[in-house]
Amino acid sequence: MTLPDTPQDVLQRLAAVIDSRKPAAGGDPERSYVARLLHRGPDAFLKKIAEEAGEVVMAAKDLQHGAGSAQALVGEMADLWFHSLIALAHFGLGPADVVAELARREGLSGLEEKALRKARAREQAEAAAAAPDMEEGTK
Amino acid sequence: MTLPDTPQDVLQRLAAVIDSRKPAAGGDPERSYVARLLHRGPDAFLKKIAEEAGEVVMAAKDLQHGAGSAQALVGEMADLWFHSLIALAHFGLGPADVVAELARREGLSGLEEKALRKARAREQAEAAAAAPDMEEGTK
Amino acid sequence: MTLPDTPQDVLQRLAAVIDSRKPAAGGDPERSYVARLLHRGPDAFLKKIAEEAGEVVMAAKDLQHGAGSAQALVGEMADLWFHSLIALAHFGLGPADVVAELARREGLSGLEEKALRKARAREQAEAAAAAPDMEEGTK
Amino acid sequence: MTLPDTPQDVLQRLAAVIDSRKPAAGGDPERSYVARLLHRGPDAFLKKIAEEAGEVVMAAKDLQHGAGSAQALVGEMADLWFHSLIALAHFGLGPADVVAELARREGLSGLEEKALRKARAREQAEAAAAAPDMEEGTK
Repeated sequence: MTLPDTPQDVLQRLAAVIDSRKPAAGGDPERSYVARLLHRGPDAFLKKIAEEAGEVVMAAKDLQHGAGSAQALVGEMADLWFHSLIALAHFGLGPADVVAELARREGLSGLEEKALRKARAREQAEAAAAAPDMEEGTK
Repeated sequence: MTLPDTPQDVLQRLAAVIDSRKPAAGGDPERSYVARLLHRGPDAFLKKIAEEAGEVVMAAKDLQHGAGSAQALVGEMADLWFHSLIALAHFGLGPADVVAELARREGLSGLEEKALRKARAREQAEAAAAAPDMEEGTK
Repeated sequence: MTLPDTPQDVLQRLAAVIDSRKPAAGGDPERSYVARLLHRGPDAFLKKIAEEAGEVVMAAKDLQHGAGSAQALVGEMADLWFHSLIALAHFGLGPADVVAELARREGLSGLEEKALRKARAREQAEAAAAAPDMEEGTK
Repeated sequence: MTLPDTPQDVLQRLAAVIDSRKPAAGGDPERSYVARLLHRGPDAFLKKIAEEAGEVVMAAKDLQHGAGSAQALVGEMADLWFHSLIALAHFGLGPADVVAELARREGLSGLEEKALRKARAREQAEAAAAAPDMEEGTK
């Protein structure tokens, strides 16, 4: 009996394909998109991460306003994660490292509470700072 | 034995926790960071995605230049994926959707070839366009 | 006697050129890059803003690490501001609006103090939150 | 009469204020937001550039969908340009450098044509690559 693939299984499999495209593994920049990005170096795939994050934001804003589609957001998120995997591979890392970090945080019972404390202090600071702003607007 | 409410997959489990923080599920913005972001709406977590993508780029550039640490990059990537999961949850989506899209593409034998064809045409266009640029620089 | 162009003069002149490329002004997407972006709509130039911001970050990190060049950073910043002008034009705005907002803030004596108050509260919150984090790391 | 230390140009004047907040000029991180960012170093203000670019994108998408306000977009763009000026100052650059680069490009008659050639080749490549994609979708 085989269990269905979990998200991590798929990410691991993709990471293995990406690793096989590395220059050291004989990846051919003339035949593979991933090999090409890895061959061109960090700026090539980091630029894509910035770009895809922007596209995730745009697709989400479309959905928020009743336009766009859930599939469009999923597609942009897939692009973002895919180029994340390429960046990780370049530095000898993989999805298991990211997932282990997420699991470590998940296990920290105080994690959310802490992040919350930080967020609330930030919001209170912004609220406190906003008041004089309005005063000044009337000058 | 695996209980249905405790998936072995970390991403799935995190997504379930995030879902439980939704306003409709009774998530309390006063007690949970995730509930707070979901309560404040899209701009709150989309802004984090743009910010964390920038931090991934910075951590990767540090590593590229022999500074920083692999763990710092992993930490930023974990932040990026974590806020990605929150955005997906807000729109009724989850990591399984993103991974299904990645698996779909992985199965498309022509996928890399196509992306490559696109990337090469783009680079050739840029190279062709770069030549007159240098000429103009001498004017 | 003519005074040398100020930065605002140049931005205004560029904005006028961009306005002349709008579809309503007869801009031809087959002959002008700007007309093409304006014709394709917000996602086309907003995507460029996200991408160019990422490239600014990368060029700055190179400089920080003693690589890259000041001219490369200037070039990326020029790309970022140029696409900012296109976005403003699309929405009937221009550099004068942004500069007026900057001047308004500049005139607010308490502005920096306020921003500082906010930044310090944020940092204190982060510092306070960081301490338990280390504890948890030892669990 | 224009004093040399009070340029009429808002961007120049802001840049001069920012320069006066540099650590070497005696800027006090305890009293000035700009001094604080410059004191903390590149990651502090580069992170803001990524974040503000994301906020520009969100404000523009709101406007596109008939929500938000032009003033909100102007405010985010002012934030983006303001933090751009801080980044430039850190590296001994200023708005005059960026604007000189924009003016240089403006003077290049072939500039738009070239950018256009590049954009069209890219779009044609994407269109050519899209066709097999649809085929694969039917598998």
